[in-house]
Amino acid sequence: MAVFPPPLKRLIDELTKLPGIGYKSAQRIAFHVLQAPEREAVALAEALVSAKRKISYCSTCFNITDTDPCRLCQDTRRINDIICVVEDPRDVVALEKTKFQGSYHVLGGAISPLEGVGPDQLRIKELLKRLKNHEVKELILATNPTLEGEATAMYLARLLRGIVPSITRIAHGLPVGGDLEYVDEMTLSKALEGRHQI
Amino acid sequence: MAVFPPPLKRLIDELTKLPGIGYKSAQRIAFHVLQAPEREAVALAEALVSAKRKISYCSTCFNITDTDPCRLCQDTRRINDIICVVEDPRDVVALEKTKFQGSYHVLGGAISPLEGVGPDQLRIKELLKRLKNHEVKELILATNPTLEGEATAMYLARLLRGIVPSITRIAHGLPVGGDLEYVDEMTLSKALEGRHQI
Repeated sequence: MAVFPPPLKRLIDELTKLPGIGYKSAQRIAFHVLQAPEREAVALAEALVSAKRKISYCSTCFNITDTDPCRLCQDTRRINDIICVVEDPRDVVALEKTKFQGSYHVLGGAISPLEGVGPDQLRIKELLKRLKNHEVKELILATNPTLEGEATAMYLARLLRGIVPSITRIAHGLPVGGDLEYVDEMTLSKALEGRHQI
Repeated sequence: MAVFPPPLKRLIDELTKLPGIGYKSAQRIAFHVLQAPEREAVALAEALVSAKRKISYCSTCFNITDTDPCRLCQDTRRINDIICVVEDPRDVVALEKTKFQGSYHVLGGAISPLEGVGPDQLRIKELLKRLKNHEVKELILATNPTLEGEATAMYLARLLRGIVPSITRIAHGLPVGGDLEYVDEMTLSKALEGRHQI
């Protein structure tokens, strides 16, 4: 016999649809919700629906935003003629923790034939249009250092050669605080290749 | 500068309040919600509020329920004169996977002086009242095999001696499929103590 009352079962089922939430975690969260004050459940419910309804993509850089253009594209202090191309809005978050002051272009993924993602599924047409309408000095390819990210960077580099004066790729090497002994050989090879005078 | 649009930041903040959800998981879930169809976010939001509003405690056994008395207490096929005392509604779920056919009484925790939980904070008065109004043959103490659970079982055993003909405690021993070599010595001692003829 079903032990959970239907409203609880439904909540657990909905929670297990979230990434990284298994049945046990969903159960734990559901019981937490039952014990917490009602306003907490209501606040989370409202935040879910409001985030979903109010957030869309910036029509310029395709980062997620609740205004269009997004806050970063509206910010006149940003350097407009340097565009950093990333796969995902989360990459923008990571880069914003650095001192980077340029603009972004979010592709919405990387080329991956295995997952059926080709150049047409990414915001590459939109990048071309943007490069045509605004003069850009440098395009920084900051896709991930994975097979798919590298393939995407190579594809873009070939496609845009001649259109943008400078196309760069972020460096590969040892992570700061990393240990030579434990780093994989691909990274170490890249670190050696990328060596520079000090 | 804040990179996340406010509605997204709010969703991440609300998600981190859930147990077992850190900032990174909250961010991953929030991005999943943004990419998923709106009906999924709405379904989760509704499930949250509905679970919180519709679920309360059974006035007989204090298990969580959306009816009063709960489905288990309403079920006339259950054995009414055997009551299994547990700490938490989740323990009922676990026991319902066994062939146990008796009734339950959910204490809502265990005696824990360190956390300021005394007998008065548990549903012990309600258990006494229940034992007074209905004839009960056996009370099975199925609190957890922890310090707090043992203390609660001892307390109840002393309190109810003479009121209930038979008071039993669930067995301690080796978990099925467990390995003698890896079991802790407390469990092994209990397993030895509890040995029986075969």
